[in-house]
Amino acid sequence: MHRFYVPELSHDGVSQLPDDEAQHLARVLRLNAGDTVAVFDGKGREALACVESVASRRVTVKILEPRTPAPEAAVAVTLAQALLKSDKMDRVIRDAVMLGVSAIQPFVSRRTDVPRAALRTGVRQDRWDRTVVASVKQCGRAVVPPVLDTQDFAAVLASTSGRVRVMLVEPGSGGDVAVADVASLEGRRPSEAMVWVGPEGGWDPGEVRDAARAGVTLVSLGGRVLRADAAAAAAIAVLRYIWRDL
Amino acid sequence: MHRFYVPELSHDGVSQLPDDEAQHLARVLRLNAGDTVAVFDGKGREALACVESVASRRVTVKILEPRTPAPEAAVAVTLAQALLKSDKMDRVIRDAVMLGVSAIQPFVSRRTDVPRAALRTGVRQDRWDRTVVASVKQCGRAVVPPVLDTQDFAAVLASTSGRVRVMLVEPGSGGDVAVADVASLEGRRPSEAMVWVGPEGGWDPGEVRDAARAGVTLVSLGGRVLRADAAAAAAIAVLRYIWRDL
Repeated sequence: MHRFYVPELSHDGVSQLPDDEAQHLARVLRLNAGDTVAVFDGKGREALACVESVASRRVTVKILEPRTPAPEAAVAVTLAQALLKSDKMDRVIRDAVMLGVSAIQPFVSRRTDVPRAALRTGVRQDRWDRTVVASVKQCGRAVVPPVLDTQDFAAVLASTSGRVRVMLVEPGSGGDVAVADVASLEGRRPSEAMVWVGPEGGWDPGEVRDAARAGVTLVSLGGRVLRADAAAAAAIAVLRYIWRDL
Repeated sequence: MHRFYVPELSHDGVSQLPDDEAQHLARVLRLNAGDTVAVFDGKGREALACVESVASRRVTVKILEPRTPAPEAAVAVTLAQALLKSDKMDRVIRDAVMLGVSAIQPFVSRRTDVPRAALRTGVRQDRWDRTVVASVKQCGRAVVPPVLDTQDFAAVLASTSGRVRVMLVEPGSGGDVAVADVASLEGRRPSEAMVWVGPEGGWDPGEVRDAARAGVTLVSLGGRVLRADAAAAAAIAVLRYIWRDL
């Protein structure tokens, strides 16, 4: 069943697909009037629909009946991910969506190796948004989590106090700061949580200290160094397990 | 500290680096006699060493003292991974090594979308072996897990009876076969285990049935569909957590 993202989904009548979704339906998949598809609004609603008309750049569908999307997680996890080089960031976003995150907060830390100028054009943000939608379609969710505006590490740290925050640190990188066993998070499932993952070059020791002081729980995922683009998915999967929220 | 893989590592005297490692040391990193490096033998031994001589294609190092590599896992996990397209398979292998697997067993299943002819030349096997070594270097292990010869699903199933085996299945794909909650694996840490992950197209229902009949535990990692190239890492991370073996 092909799934299409229709943010302005009508509740019972006829909806028009956005341009890119219309083109995908008509030109790539070559579907026609009468075909059955699934549509979702990105806010959790999904429905079976019938393709009503296919013209160049204009495709309309008619809602048939509600359809159950993949379940949303109980813990609203925001992934705070230090900027990575382009394809690695895409991979992190794709995997995080698949593992049910509620939002992605990119940030710039001291060892971030991506020029901020690359962000100003908005090209990367557009690409991230498209990656999110593609992953949502593939994993069966009907919620499109936002990629928030990129901020500095300190700004994200300051603006998220009070939340349950978990920072993934490399083995031995805690310095004089205590690193918790991830198992210590068992038994208290929060309603929302923020998971912090550093850049390719790792955290600066000052950042780790600042985070600990601000009440962030530092955890390590074992004795081997995880690649920056694989760490978020491993951490989120384990946390979801710990919180009985897979 | 740069780390080099020296399978024929001398126990106290002088060792010669293999060609590719010698070239990497001399041409890429431009290290010289007198520089300190780390060397490991791929079987668990690691040492500090001093570069003794650098000539074209011939680099020798002298062992200084033992060095502690990243710890090996307590549960020897073999990842049985259905063949994926080239870059996806590389990613799976890289992540699996980082998460401490003892071996990788590629296999061909009914929905595998990779021509077997592509395997006969040995090019892929060479590439996988290089991917393993690169990941071992990055994550700090001193053990190089083997990528076993590719086999058919049925052959791997038949030759591994008696082992603890866990098959990752998509939500709802069990058909009439019972899918366990992954939490049911808590509390009994095996000394070795095999984790099965299917191809892009998913398992054929007959394969799922055959596996269940052969005593393989079917588990699902929650309600969302995981991409084939991300499933193994998420599953291994969760299993390591469950077995208190991160």
